[in-house]
Amino acid sequence: MLTLPPATPTSSFAARMLDLCVRLQGTICDGLEALDGTAAFGRDAWERPGGGGGEARVIENGLVFEKGGVNVSAVHGMLPERMAGAFGVDAKPFFATGISSVIHPRNPHVPTVHFNFRYFALGDDLAAPEDQWFGGGADLTPYFPDLRDVVHFHQVWKTVCDRHRTVADYADYKAKCDRYFHLPHRNEARGVGGIFFDYLRDDPAAVFAFVEDAGHAVLDAYAPIVERTKSEPFSEREQAFQEIRRGRYAEFNLAYDRGTRFGLETNGRTESILMSLPPRAQWHYAWVPEAGSREAQATAFFQPHDWLGGDVPSAS
Amino acid sequence: MLTLPPATPTSSFAARMLDLCVRLQGTICDGLEALDGTAAFGRDAWERPGGGGGEARVIENGLVFEKGGVNVSAVHGMLPERMAGAFGVDAKPFFATGISSVIHPRNPHVPTVHFNFRYFALGDDLAAPEDQWFGGGADLTPYFPDLRDVVHFHQVWKTVCDRHRTVADYADYKAKCDRYFHLPHRNEARGVGGIFFDYLRDDPAAVFAFVEDAGHAVLDAYAPIVERTKSEPFSEREQAFQEIRRGRYAEFNLAYDRGTRFGLETNGRTESILMSLPPRAQWHYAWVPEAGSREAQATAFFQPHDWLGGDVPSAS
Repeated sequence: MLTLPPATPTSSFAARMLDLCVRLQGTICDGLEALDGTAAFGRDAWERPGGGGGEARVIENGLVFEKGGVNVSAVHGMLPERMAGAFGVDAKPFFATGISSVIHPRNPHVPTVHFNFRYFALGDDLAAPEDQWFGGGADLTPYFPDLRDVVHFHQVWKTVCDRHRTVADYADYKAKCDRYFHLPHRNEARGVGGIFFDYLRDDPAAVFAFVEDAGHAVLDAYAPIVERTKSEPFSEREQAFQEIRRGRYAEFNLAYDRGTRFGLETNGRTESILMSLPPRAQWHYAWVPEAGSREAQATAFFQPHDWLGGDVPSAS
Repeated sequence: MLTLPPATPTSSFAARMLDLCVRLQGTICDGLEALDGTAAFGRDAWERPGGGGGEARVIENGLVFEKGGVNVSAVHGMLPERMAGAFGVDAKPFFATGISSVIHPRNPHVPTVHFNFRYFALGDDLAAPEDQWFGGGADLTPYFPDLRDVVHFHQVWKTVCDRHRTVADYADYKAKCDRYFHLPHRNEARGVGGIFFDYLRDDPAAVFAFVEDAGHAVLDAYAPIVERTKSEPFSEREQAFQEIRRGRYAEFNLAYDRGTRFGLETNGRTESILMSLPPRAQWHYAWVPEAGSREAQATAFFQPHDWLGGDVPSAS
């Protein structure tokens, strides 16, 4: 159930962000359904015992999209002890809303995409919170990356950031994304990155405008890549590589992702938290791609690169 | 490379435990190869930069065993800071050796098994360590559990514990196993448990005799179950359930297992740490077994039960 705490003014960032998330959920699900052509997003509304709830929209077994979700939640109540500790504050009223999505396509030539935009407020009065901040980002996880797609994806986010120079810095947010989606035990990136930002507190009106613009750019960033790749033929071997890479995706999300770990530790809604996990994954002992293979070429993309600066990966 | 620190006396528990682990690795791999009938365990020796190393023995794509490993390691040096902190001691010399194994069969009617026996010593002199302890255990993860197998598995461990009453307590170790292999976010057990023990310090000679006996009981506990089930026909639907359950196995190992998390955080050998991950896993949004189905009956086993006391699970 997507509700605000009683008496939240519609002019508050809490109300405006929830409204934005709901609108984005609708337009992005519509856009993805159009790309898929057959499957539709189902709806799964849930309630949080402590206050608020969410609505998961989930697609499975589509022609293009094998498994994906676009979740919106809006939760409030007293800050759980574990979260208060993480933020270094005492227990007090909080409100959090956000949209979060992972889309896993069937065809190994179509990248997985993840995006998330969120807002957090502390204090009794959402018209004038004691503290409030925005966070979010979007990143791409191709299996057989095409440099054109990677450059397109990053260019969209650079263009959005450049329109909001007072609050958004593409180079900084790109670097933060590379640092975040890093698997230390593999010494590799989850994918080809994107942007990641958090704790944006100053000038909330300007930050909200940036987040709104970024939310509307998700389909611009992702849809052309899906259009270009969705009809490419693929082999069982390519599918096996996709599933091996999806094993790494599961490793990152279960072992490192802060949102996932925080959600599990704070007794969050398991199905929403683990919605990000891939439909299928494989693990083989000490697997490495054959030298010179397309899998080896792909793997060279899974290290940070200055994609817009012409830094082109080459397989070693 | 399986080596002891220089001048370690052969009468020390360090030397005796390493010797035991190497012998167990040989007999258990031989036993599993005989059960498989076609595949053989490969050997992958590795060295630890700080001192010592290990030998992984790995089986893949067998007739019976889809993916499994039996690893022995013996590492020594100065206790890494992160471990010293966990043990509440200053940095000092340490020695650790152990055998660790996860075996994932192909047929969903054959359970996955995990076992581990380990020894840890602190101080300069392995003939008279400042502190030393043993740990270990074995647990079973069936997909379509048969009560006879579960009772057999637990009975073997009870019999072993009962032979070493001064240091081993089946009821206690069974309860510890249930507590350890618990997925809080699913409120379910990883499988049907077994035994789990750690920090056994008192009377190391008696503990070593127990660990030796337990190590030799692994094949007694597991082989008859494999023999009974390995030729059962299975369907795609049963295989899908196996892969969904293996998703939970991956969730436990990546998000909760202390050994895995500790290994990843202390920059351990990734391939050995993640050897436990299943060959294939599946995740579906909000998946629940159909009421009255064999999957629902199976799921009823994944809660702690007094298997030897006649407490029989029933699907709700």
